[in-house]
Amino acid sequence: MSVIEAIRWSEDGRAVRILDQRRLPGAEVYRELRTVAEVRDAIATLAVRGAPAIGIAGAMGMVIAIDEAMRDGIDPMSHLRVAHEIIRAARPTAVNLAWAVDRVMDIATGAAATGGDLRSALCAAATRILEEDRAMCRRIGEHGAALIPDGANVITHCNAGALATGGIGTALAAIYVAVEQGKRVSVFADETRPLLQGSRLTAWELERAGIPVTVLVDSAAASLMRERKIDLCIVGADRIAENGDVANKVGTFPLALAAKHHGVPFYVAAPTSTLDPATKSGERIHIEQRGKTEVTSGFETPTAPDRVAVYNPAFDVTPADLIDAIITDQGLYRAPYHFAATT
Amino acid sequence: MSVIEAIRWSEDGRAVRILDQRRLPGAEVYRELRTVAEVRDAIATLAVRGAPAIGIAGAMGMVIAIDEAMRDGIDPMSHLRVAHEIIRAARPTAVNLAWAVDRVMDIATGAAATGGDLRSALCAAATRILEEDRAMCRRIGEHGAALIPDGANVITHCNAGALATGGIGTALAAIYVAVEQGKRVSVFADETRPLLQGSRLTAWELERAGIPVTVLVDSAAASLMRERKIDLCIVGADRIAENGDVANKVGTFPLALAAKHHGVPFYVAAPTSTLDPATKSGERIHIEQRGKTEVTSGFETPTAPDRVAVYNPAFDVTPADLIDAIITDQGLYRAPYHFAATT
Repeated sequence: MSVIEAIRWSEDGRAVRILDQRRLPGAEVYRELRTVAEVRDAIATLAVRGAPAIGIAGAMGMVIAIDEAMRDGIDPMSHLRVAHEIIRAARPTAVNLAWAVDRVMDIATGAAATGGDLRSALCAAATRILEEDRAMCRRIGEHGAALIPDGANVITHCNAGALATGGIGTALAAIYVAVEQGKRVSVFADETRPLLQGSRLTAWELERAGIPVTVLVDSAAASLMRERKIDLCIVGADRIAENGDVANKVGTFPLALAAKHHGVPFYVAAPTSTLDPATKSGERIHIEQRGKTEVTSGFETPTAPDRVAVYNPAFDVTPADLIDAIITDQGLYRAPYHFAATT
Repeated sequence: MSVIEAIRWSEDGRAVRILDQRRLPGAEVYRELRTVAEVRDAIATLAVRGAPAIGIAGAMGMVIAIDEAMRDGIDPMSHLRVAHEIIRAARPTAVNLAWAVDRVMDIATGAAATGGDLRSALCAAATRILEEDRAMCRRIGEHGAALIPDGANVITHCNAGALATGGIGTALAAIYVAVEQGKRVSVFADETRPLLQGSRLTAWELERAGIPVTVLVDSAAASLMRERKIDLCIVGADRIAENGDVANKVGTFPLALAAKHHGVPFYVAAPTSTLDPATKSGERIHIEQRGKTEVTSGFETPTAPDRVAVYNPAFDVTPADLIDAIITDQGLYRAPYHFAATT
């Protein structure tokens, strides 16, 4: 089995090599980003996407900035400060991106003060962020795989896979590790309206890894469960409250309702960094409303009257009592969840 | 309030006037069908759609066949027999279409035997089918409107509206009559993947009637209920089993699950002809699997890998215990349902 690598260093170590996700599922195109502008554009236009992958791209982009300064004969530290602002602004709401480029900028400032080798220090820092993410995915996968029996039919929503991380993903990591362990696993992928990350991305990366995958419209998942074709659900998370309520891509909550109705186990896989003990429950999580054209004219074709109102929440909140276990890199948690106390 | 008329006689009474639903929601285009070939094509290409509307179009098409025979100087009865086969084959699985054209053909055979005026007999028969459907919609609307309080926020799925019938629809009839009664009603329309009848058709006909409507992806309905923005659900039905299990467009069942979880009433509106006492429960209803391209390349754009498997059921089954009432032209039914006994 060969799991896709969404982001890594190029062979010569002088470029950020990404899989251009705008071209999926039609074409598997890799790009080597050799300038800060290219890194910024790749992040802004979703050529690279997923919170962990964006953070990694940003950190690696800071190394590219050093090379660029050398090439152009300008002061590395002043160019780094410009690059830091440019990359950070490419996705202003991506917390992971800000965290990663700030971390690299701090190291640059320290290296400059002590007179160390700036490029080596930044390259090591960016590579460490990539390696930490890979290791985190692997640990989630190992904890999650224990929940997947041989012969299991698994349903997932959105893309919590290798395409979103530097490693083998979060929810999909559990599936990849189970398959590595010799288990036979079939996956059902909700298409995930409005942006279709399930059919465009999850189906693509699983098929490429040789794992059987079936795509369905989101509202057909309940029928599959009624036909007893699903053994378990596993999804990712954008934020997990202190009480175990989970914010994730819209459509996660109705999937969990269908699972509860049919007695199908429902699991959430996410890095420990997703736990937010300061948020007491899902009711406190602000849900972003996105633009109406995602619903009324996705895919360039108008599919609703022009003036119609649209309700388009990016996320929904799945209450903790619908979740059988939360899988993190530090292990499995089961209800009742109290993340302030346990982590 | 002006509700759209999907099908009626043209002003001169010599053509079937339809709203071309292939052009929605972009353009409101009416076509006058003056030949059997035009009627067949309109049915086959979904210019006219919805079981009742297709049946009406077929019946009216038989009158067009008489006029065509007169124009071309050929024997009316032999041309009718050809037209009967051609129209019946336009949508081979549409039970309503076969029923309607068979009914008109029987009347033609009777009129020919007794020497009556063939055109008058057929025109009266086709008009009767149209008028019966209009009256049926109106009665469903009146029974259903009693369940809709002033100021209600109502969610619906797919299109069980005027666009599918000769009258004001089934599920939407209840809304139209409630608004006629002076109630303020806001509607939320599930887009209804894969074919988007909710965003393309329901949103369009409600907006045109001046009723506030908001479109959402199917999997956002549960979030709306969690936010306490929905007072009741009302949907149509394709078939209702003896025990009250309902087959309807895929996505109806998860909507009912979300409604039950949140304590929101869930109603089904359908003509008495939809009741099928010979089918004991939903488990006996065969669910048609449709083609994969509806899911993998709707909107002309490929949205999933070429070779991926697809699960694409046309309908799902909502168990009777999730349904608070079934609204028919004969009145309201509440659980426990036993349609063999009551109808």
